[in-house]
Amino acid sequence: MIYNQSLALLTDLYQLTMVHGYWKAGIAHRHAVFHINFRRWPFKGGFAIAAGLETAVQFLKDFRFSSTDLAYLEELDLFEKPFLDFLSKFQFSCDLDALPEGSLVFPYEPIIRVKGPIWQAQLLESPMLNIINFQTLIATKAARICLAAHPDPVIEFGMRRAQGVDGAISASRAAFIGGCESTSDVIAGKLFGIPIRGTHAHSWIMAFEDEEKAFEIFAKMRPKNCIMLIDTYNSIEGAKKAIKVAKSMKDFDLAGVRLDSGDLAKLSIEIRKLLDEAGLKKACIMASNELDEYLIRDLKQQGAKINVWGVGTNLVTGKDQPALDGVYKLSAIQNEKGEWVHKIKLSEQTAKVTNPGILQIRRYFDGQFYTGDAIYDEIIGIDHSATIIDAHDPNRQMQGSGHSSDLLIPIFREGKVVYSAPSLFEAQAHAKRELTRLPPSMERFTNPQPYLAGLEKKLYQKKMEMIRKVRDENTHHH
Amino acid sequence: MIYNQSLALLTDLYQLTMVHGYWKAGIAHRHAVFHINFRRWPFKGGFAIAAGLETAVQFLKDFRFSSTDLAYLEELDLFEKPFLDFLSKFQFSCDLDALPEGSLVFPYEPIIRVKGPIWQAQLLESPMLNIINFQTLIATKAARICLAAHPDPVIEFGMRRAQGVDGAISASRAAFIGGCESTSDVIAGKLFGIPIRGTHAHSWIMAFEDEEKAFEIFAKMRPKNCIMLIDTYNSIEGAKKAIKVAKSMKDFDLAGVRLDSGDLAKLSIEIRKLLDEAGLKKACIMASNELDEYLIRDLKQQGAKINVWGVGTNLVTGKDQPALDGVYKLSAIQNEKGEWVHKIKLSEQTAKVTNPGILQIRRYFDGQFYTGDAIYDEIIGIDHSATIIDAHDPNRQMQGSGHSSDLLIPIFREGKVVYSAPSLFEAQAHAKRELTRLPPSMERFTNPQPYLAGLEKKLYQKKMEMIRKVRDENTHHH
Repeated sequence: MIYNQSLALLTDLYQLTMVHGYWKAGIAHRHAVFHINFRRWPFKGGFAIAAGLETAVQFLKDFRFSSTDLAYLEELDLFEKPFLDFLSKFQFSCDLDALPEGSLVFPYEPIIRVKGPIWQAQLLESPMLNIINFQTLIATKAARICLAAHPDPVIEFGMRRAQGVDGAISASRAAFIGGCESTSDVIAGKLFGIPIRGTHAHSWIMAFEDEEKAFEIFAKMRPKNCIMLIDTYNSIEGAKKAIKVAKSMKDFDLAGVRLDSGDLAKLSIEIRKLLDEAGLKKACIMASNELDEYLIRDLKQQGAKINVWGVGTNLVTGKDQPALDGVYKLSAIQNEKGEWVHKIKLSEQTAKVTNPGILQIRRYFDGQFYTGDAIYDEIIGIDHSATIIDAHDPNRQMQGSGHSSDLLIPIFREGKVVYSAPSLFEAQAHAKRELTRLPPSMERFTNPQPYLAGLEKKLYQKKMEMIRKVRDENTHHH
Repeated sequence: MIYNQSLALLTDLYQLTMVHGYWKAGIAHRHAVFHINFRRWPFKGGFAIAAGLETAVQFLKDFRFSSTDLAYLEELDLFEKPFLDFLSKFQFSCDLDALPEGSLVFPYEPIIRVKGPIWQAQLLESPMLNIINFQTLIATKAARICLAAHPDPVIEFGMRRAQGVDGAISASRAAFIGGCESTSDVIAGKLFGIPIRGTHAHSWIMAFEDEEKAFEIFAKMRPKNCIMLIDTYNSIEGAKKAIKVAKSMKDFDLAGVRLDSGDLAKLSIEIRKLLDEAGLKKACIMASNELDEYLIRDLKQQGAKINVWGVGTNLVTGKDQPALDGVYKLSAIQNEKGEWVHKIKLSEQTAKVTNPGILQIRRYFDGQFYTGDAIYDEIIGIDHSATIIDAHDPNRQMQGSGHSSDLLIPIFREGKVVYSAPSLFEAQAHAKRELTRLPPSMERFTNPQPYLAGLEKKLYQKKMEMIRKVRDENTHHH
């Protein structure tokens, strides 16, 4: 971790209150199962890309209450001293299963499953959600932007408007998993090995007497990979000066020019012509300025001659939906005899009803595309050819067929890491491969055909039965 | 800082490229001035609340390139070794002036001004923007939400969907400055002394055989400040059970109940009746569920009986505008003779044209309300009674009168801290006082009367003259 102190208190107060309560009630060691899933299709699109797992693993490896954490909790006067002693002995002992980073994931599917003593599993709710919600959001946004820019590369450079220090660092990481070619964020290069890129700012031009002089000095300094920012005063005149400087130099290949304002379609077409006429056919045109998947698609449709896309704010904040609505819900708990008891949370809002059980995802594949996912309960089990039911539109059903595989893989067993993390490059490659297996109609930016990620029939029936039972109890009981 | 490593590489690659260039061009030590300002009214409202300064000060105090930073930079093969040696000797020596945290701030006004060797001032662009943009955004959002909830308290609890670890921690800090009464974020309590609050989650209810039993155990554990979450199965039935448990216990005062789903207006009215009938008039109703300033205002208008507002995602991500569009722009540089030269950046987009000079803000106050701000240039100076011109609507002008004061205060002088930071409680009190001085028509959530924060006339004239000059050069020069 990049933090110089324990992050054990990166949690909501009520987690500690509840753990205190479990401890007092004598059920702290009872095993429970929690899952993370989101509920709404992010960005109104047809898929999400799971990310954040490796960050979560690092967090869990380092998890312990430091002496200053315990001292602070003691000051609050909310917790009994023996309970704080109990906390101080925290040693992670849960099983954790998860979707590998870069995997396609759909609403209501468990991204992470935690099984173990309820006091530990409960404590992880806030930080696990914090890490997984954000990185999954940004990996998904990046994948959408990269689909729009394809085959051109996308460079992420959102640090300056990211949501805090880690809002920048985690976003660079997740954006790379989602398909970005590189980042401007130097510390993300250092920490994660992500390729880093950069040009220069307007201040570079303004620091010298005139633009031409500034270009000259920059070109001398960077005979390779020199990209000049040309819009400090006037983009077309800036392009002409960049070309003049490039042509005047020996052993120099202008890598490209960068636009950061104005009509990017019109300007890029004009500047492409200027570059080509000057024999600089290899020089690219890089563009930035409030880009997102929609604007990139429009610019391409209008014939913009842009080859490299620099995307900042709208990518790293997930602008049109800055949070994934992931939740971490209890779905089963062992009773005194050690038997699993299914649990469900009802709600006036159907979308907020949870799925009971110890959940796993089985994904079906026809050799070319994924055809559907069955969320099933390991307690109930699944048939070889499962029926999948869309829980929000039960008339929509399918029979699972073809190749299938279970997606949640073991990450921790009794608190010990049992998997070896793929590199970030492998995670990116996995995401790219996953997207080729998603039917194209599900990649539309808006109103895509929804992928069927439903409940396996026996789980669906179990859930309906439980809803009826709880509703009955709460209507007639009093 | 909470980080266990240098954050000197929390920067965009091009900053290092430019600094390398200034160093090679022999102008690294020339003094320059940069300012941070945003350009658009955040959330389409009428004000912003400055925040993040103290975090920025901490960042600057700790700023140095560690040996691993330098080793990483060397690996990149982009920088000359003597330049890396130069970097390794970084010792902050700039002057920095800033708006105190909690101050009202308007578009184009400098929030932070950095004056010093260009190589240092340039390096600070990315991290300063990262810190100031986000915290100012969230303090502003919090102030809007608190205005809607007034006089009820607002508790921030957005960690689980915040944008990464620091997206949570910084947001808790900024939301407190903006007026939140407390946070659920325990680490923000530990780090900043912010009061922390919490109830329990649905999992608490689900961990026991039934809801009543769960309430009983919770109530025994928290004889004081007990707030029960009542919507796990059915909100009205949940309220009845909470009341039953509360009435059955000795020496117990139910602090309140919490709703997290359903029709919060209707449910809160019904539940208020149930509580009052049971003699629990002091028990509050706390509500959460995708709240923001608009929903709180609507709920209040519909007679909702909610006394405490828990606001998460929409607050900590600034949902409807998840980034402030702050920029950090060069506005003056010393020439070889040490004379200040004004600098301006043009753009096809008028909003992106910068203000030249060494800027300061003078704010006028009529004893009850602020009447207008003059952004002026310390090089040119300001008259006692300044004319203020709205740069984007030059017909809008006013004469500054009444009390006035200059808002940017010295924070660093030649790299040394010269101010003592107010406590977070003082910053919050300052923000509250500031808002009472903003005319009510400027507090509207949408389409407010815009406050006049314009350019002092001589600065306006200087800017116009510079624009004409640069445009001429770039149209006729070739």
